[in-house]
Amino acid sequence: MQEDKRNKATWIWYPGDFEIWLGNIFNNRRTERGAMFPPFWKQDSHWVTVEFSKSFELTETETITIGCEGLFNLALDGKLQFGMPKTFEIHKGQHKLNIKVWNQATPPALFIDGKTIQTDSTWLVTYEDKIWIDENGVAHGSGIYVPAASWNFDSIDTPPSGFQLERKEQRPVCGRATTTNGTLYDFGRETFGYLKVQGLKGTVRIYYGESAEEALDKEHCETLDVLHEGELLGSKAFRYVYIEEEEGSSYDEVLMDYEFAQFDTKHSGSFRCSDEELNRIWEVAAYTMDLTTREFFMDGIKRDRWTWSGDAIQSYLMNYYLRFDTECVKRTIRQLRGKDPVTAHVNTIMDYTFYWFISIDQYFQYTGDKAFLAEMLPRMQTLMDYVESRLNQDGMAEGKPDDWIFVDWTDFPMHKHGTLCFEQILLYRAYTALVRANYLTGHKDEMKKYVNKAVSLGTKTIETFWNEEKGAYMHAVEDGKMNEQITKFPNMMSLIMMYDTDEKAQQILNNVMLNPDVPAITTPYMRFYELEALCKMGLQEKVLKDIKAYWGGMLREGATSFWEKYVPSEKGTEHLAMYGRPYGKSLCHAWGASPIYIIGKYFLGVRPLTPGYETYEVRPTLGGLEWMEGEVPTPFGKIRIKVQERRREGEKERRKEVTVFSDGGQGSLIIGDRQIDIPPQQVINITL
Amino acid sequence: MQEDKRNKATWIWYPGDFEIWLGNIFNNRRTERGAMFPPFWKQDSHWVTVEFSKSFELTETETITIGCEGLFNLALDGKLQFGMPKTFEIHKGQHKLNIKVWNQATPPALFIDGKTIQTDSTWLVTYEDKIWIDENGVAHGSGIYVPAASWNFDSIDTPPSGFQLERKEQRPVCGRATTTNGTLYDFGRETFGYLKVQGLKGTVRIYYGESAEEALDKEHCETLDVLHEGELLGSKAFRYVYIEEEEGSSYDEVLMDYEFAQFDTKHSGSFRCSDEELNRIWEVAAYTMDLTTREFFMDGIKRDRWTWSGDAIQSYLMNYYLRFDTECVKRTIRQLRGKDPVTAHVNTIMDYTFYWFISIDQYFQYTGDKAFLAEMLPRMQTLMDYVESRLNQDGMAEGKPDDWIFVDWTDFPMHKHGTLCFEQILLYRAYTALVRANYLTGHKDEMKKYVNKAVSLGTKTIETFWNEEKGAYMHAVEDGKMNEQITKFPNMMSLIMMYDTDEKAQQILNNVMLNPDVPAITTPYMRFYELEALCKMGLQEKVLKDIKAYWGGMLREGATSFWEKYVPSEKGTEHLAMYGRPYGKSLCHAWGASPIYIIGKYFLGVRPLTPGYETYEVRPTLGGLEWMEGEVPTPFGKIRIKVQERRREGEKERRKEVTVFSDGGQGSLIIGDRQIDIPPQQVINITL
Repeated sequence: MQEDKRNKATWIWYPGDFEIWLGNIFNNRRTERGAMFPPFWKQDSHWVTVEFSKSFELTETETITIGCEGLFNLALDGKLQFGMPKTFEIHKGQHKLNIKVWNQATPPALFIDGKTIQTDSTWLVTYEDKIWIDENGVAHGSGIYVPAASWNFDSIDTPPSGFQLERKEQRPVCGRATTTNGTLYDFGRETFGYLKVQGLKGTVRIYYGESAEEALDKEHCETLDVLHEGELLGSKAFRYVYIEEEEGSSYDEVLMDYEFAQFDTKHSGSFRCSDEELNRIWEVAAYTMDLTTREFFMDGIKRDRWTWSGDAIQSYLMNYYLRFDTECVKRTIRQLRGKDPVTAHVNTIMDYTFYWFISIDQYFQYTGDKAFLAEMLPRMQTLMDYVESRLNQDGMAEGKPDDWIFVDWTDFPMHKHGTLCFEQILLYRAYTALVRANYLTGHKDEMKKYVNKAVSLGTKTIETFWNEEKGAYMHAVEDGKMNEQITKFPNMMSLIMMYDTDEKAQQILNNVMLNPDVPAITTPYMRFYELEALCKMGLQEKVLKDIKAYWGGMLREGATSFWEKYVPSEKGTEHLAMYGRPYGKSLCHAWGASPIYIIGKYFLGVRPLTPGYETYEVRPTLGGLEWMEGEVPTPFGKIRIKVQERRREGEKERRKEVTVFSDGGQGSLIIGDRQIDIPPQQVINITL
Repeated sequence: MQEDKRNKATWIWYPGDFEIWLGNIFNNRRTERGAMFPPFWKQDSHWVTVEFSKSFELTETETITIGCEGLFNLALDGKLQFGMPKTFEIHKGQHKLNIKVWNQATPPALFIDGKTIQTDSTWLVTYEDKIWIDENGVAHGSGIYVPAASWNFDSIDTPPSGFQLERKEQRPVCGRATTTNGTLYDFGRETFGYLKVQGLKGTVRIYYGESAEEALDKEHCETLDVLHEGELLGSKAFRYVYIEEEEGSSYDEVLMDYEFAQFDTKHSGSFRCSDEELNRIWEVAAYTMDLTTREFFMDGIKRDRWTWSGDAIQSYLMNYYLRFDTECVKRTIRQLRGKDPVTAHVNTIMDYTFYWFISIDQYFQYTGDKAFLAEMLPRMQTLMDYVESRLNQDGMAEGKPDDWIFVDWTDFPMHKHGTLCFEQILLYRAYTALVRANYLTGHKDEMKKYVNKAVSLGTKTIETFWNEEKGAYMHAVEDGKMNEQITKFPNMMSLIMMYDTDEKAQQILNNVMLNPDVPAITTPYMRFYELEALCKMGLQEKVLKDIKAYWGGMLREGATSFWEKYVPSEKGTEHLAMYGRPYGKSLCHAWGASPIYIIGKYFLGVRPLTPGYETYEVRPTLGGLEWMEGEVPTPFGKIRIKVQERRREGEKERRKEVTVFSDGGQGSLIIGDRQIDIPPQQVINITL
């Protein structure tokens, strides 16, 4: 929910700059066996010199207090003032304040507090005031001014550059000496934070593990540290740590500071049902999400620790059903985009560029936040310019030699050259995101342009890839030659994003999605879309079984958070390996938490019909459960649902009892053919 | 001269990043009455994460020492190593080192020294290694790698971020108590540096002045400071300082640290002649240049203290005849350009964008430095893309509402709207700069493109603005209507840059340049081009008189460095005022030093015919002087010339005695119709 910020001063900065700067810190915390590991793509910088301004009228003299991150000047009514004052008196009347701040190391930021003058989003900001002097000696300013950005830095003593997550001390559940010179500590479940070796004299070597096997394998564990007396450790993901003292060294005990984002638990989603395994899956998925919802949405907490657009778009959707942390969504979208000029696809991956566009459209649908749409539109345009500069002669997205075409990690060989159907469907959806963004910000001509592009690409994609005989989308075409490989990827995406006809959808379902000859998906990443497609086609009962088999399978393997990849046929330590490394797999990966989204959207059945849940539907589907209850966060509070199927005394048939209560919005409860209005703040209780 | 850097380790960084970072520090040092005053245009940032790499073969094991500005990782043969080692052992054999450095506050920089491995310009650098993984799991790197940049940071203890100019303590020539509570100190001549108030107890108020009047005018002096005990002052330009103690405060004495760039005096230009006033003009011009040749070429040392492209291009040309400090030229060109995306003209001024292109072509002509051309070419292309995106329908440069059209400060009203002839001539010359840059770097198609653009624009400019009847270029056309104002600006630029026919040139000379009805130029800025045009037309005798009148006039007014503007008819303190401020005028302005260039190029008559003085001409012209001697620096050393006109005993006619000696290159001495070869390292002694 948007906080009311009237009459409250808050730190302000140039939109996106906090994220660019924090993103560099965040992404550069990745390590690989003690070596730092920055991303492969361009890291941008905040604007180093930024001007803040506001016009106002004072009915009486007022003294303002000024906090500033950076060196600054202050002009009142165009006149520069001496030095960098901490307080400043302004007399009654009409005035304009301009403050220009320079800061190379952290984003220029400003905090002003007075009786009536306070920094907030009503201030304007520019990185270029572009003053010029005409032939008559008159100075003109023709910079581009945008509303200042802010968050929750509401005290002069908590500037943005000091931002950090919360910490809480935790102890291992047990520590046991091993046969070697070291000790293995178990913190009970997957966790994240700063290990503390209390009372250290000398030096210890620390080997982290998401599994005991990893921590004990000094040669191959993914993360390790050497800690000298008096030093502090950086944050790591682990469940186990194995610690060896160097000769003559010693310590008293091992603790950790668990690091986490503080959520508004009153405003979080919840879920309980008649199936205890599903409840446990939901809880572990929620814990997985909480571990990966940090400064930004992170992919995996052990290894990558970077923002990845394809991973993040799924986190956003899960988040709308769990914490509704819209600030983290915006931060991640801004960070992923970076600055102009665009020199590569987002994360260097073509599909990830397309997801970035789509995520903005989805964000708007869930939040109704038009200001963010306006902020992002110029960045959407320049990124799309980059995409279009690389389209092939048919206007289709085809990988250039320096593009990464990802789609998914697969166990079967998958063609990734030429023009992939999968990529066209994502680009089509990206175009529709630009259509809506331009429509809502009043750029009608641009909107029409993208409508035409979307229609043209959509038509061409069907013409090119739809095989009527096989009733499926083919995979790829290269040098005019069709690769008739059938994969679930383009087909399920078409069900979700292309608005296929019912008939075509049914063909896809039968010929691809339910066809055992089509290779199975092995990552939770693409299972996300697979399950969504199946749910859209009304197969909740099958999906519930799949979830219990796949995610239940991880739980039976001892998972305390969900994994990057799971192949049920693997055994023992095979589950830990990936990328040719024995512990390469991340055992806490955001895309592993998708049941949160599937359950919220397709079992509890809640989704916005118009932006920000102004209108929404609740279409509960038990999918074989006896009962379920849950809460879904929205911009105006929560929607609470309880559904139970039971036979009442004296009745033959099982009946459905449904209770819904919503804090706001205009809802429609849909059960079978029935549609019941859900007015705000009113309990709806129905038995069918 | 290019220093031999083989087998010498030096700090390296991403090309241009040192300048971007240092430029922000430099430009943000400007103050106005105690308020900091950053530029009006976008300030960029260095790439914050940069990767350095080199492949090499070792015949024996070697231990390297590593210095790094920033956090870094080190990969040997693709394998990341633990931590951030200060030394590292590499075994015999073929290897590749990759070092990735992150530094938000100062440019990522690297220094590696070993027996055979040293950081230098043979290392490659990228801001984006753009790794991606293909369908077979193979990683590819497709970043764009360029040669690393370096300068003279040749010790691990002198990293680039520690760069500062030299300092030397100086004393005032006198200090005298005034009638008020303060004391006025005079440092004897215009100077620049850090005032030091020794033994300060309490607080003093300091008012700086380029004139005594300014220092004593506490309400209107342009720069001032309040100094508290224990603090240090920033650098300022001044000749006088007026100091007042706050009540109860005291100090012992006032000194200053003069701050200056260290030049290679053995490699500097010189000039002496029979006219003592001209000698004094040359010396004061040289001092003016030395004061403004700093981290970058600065316009004026008191007020602006920014890099300005139109000012800088003149500094470069003067510098080729004085210090031949090519590093400062490159630094300034890089700094002015900044980074992509281009969001405004250079310094927001359209003419200044065009000068930027031209300055690169001139730099190449004087130095033959093809590596710099290759470095700049991509930046030239994207800046020209910006220019062309703003051309009018006739393909001509016309100011948009947010463009500053400067041309010059004039005392008469000058039309600056619509299409100015002056701007087209500069754009024509900018196109020719792109022609040569593309030609020399092997981009033949791009070269042809710009040849066509230049020819087309040149033709259109003559068709549009040349008035056959008046024998002059008209000033501007707006909305199809010709403004028939005749100014010297486009006409003299056509003489210098457009290669007009001799006939046309003669018309321009008579109808414009020597026409007393055409308004006079009042800034040394445009007098630079005026004098150059006259010299090109062979009017050295007139130019000598003009120089003595104009620059001699400033000396007679007490100038110890040359001014931003000089109007001979003004009296007393009128000379100090500008921009409507009583001391607004800069009394040490780089563009005031143009006699250095005019004398070197058109009196001593030395100029390169092919890049880097591989071939050159010496065309000495006494212009009324009895004798002159001088030295002109070149990439290979110096060219020394002595010319004397005298009547020998027993002869009726005055004869010219010419002596030339050059350290290198193939020269042609041209006197009248005679042309004499100047081979390197051989004294040429001729009497005519």
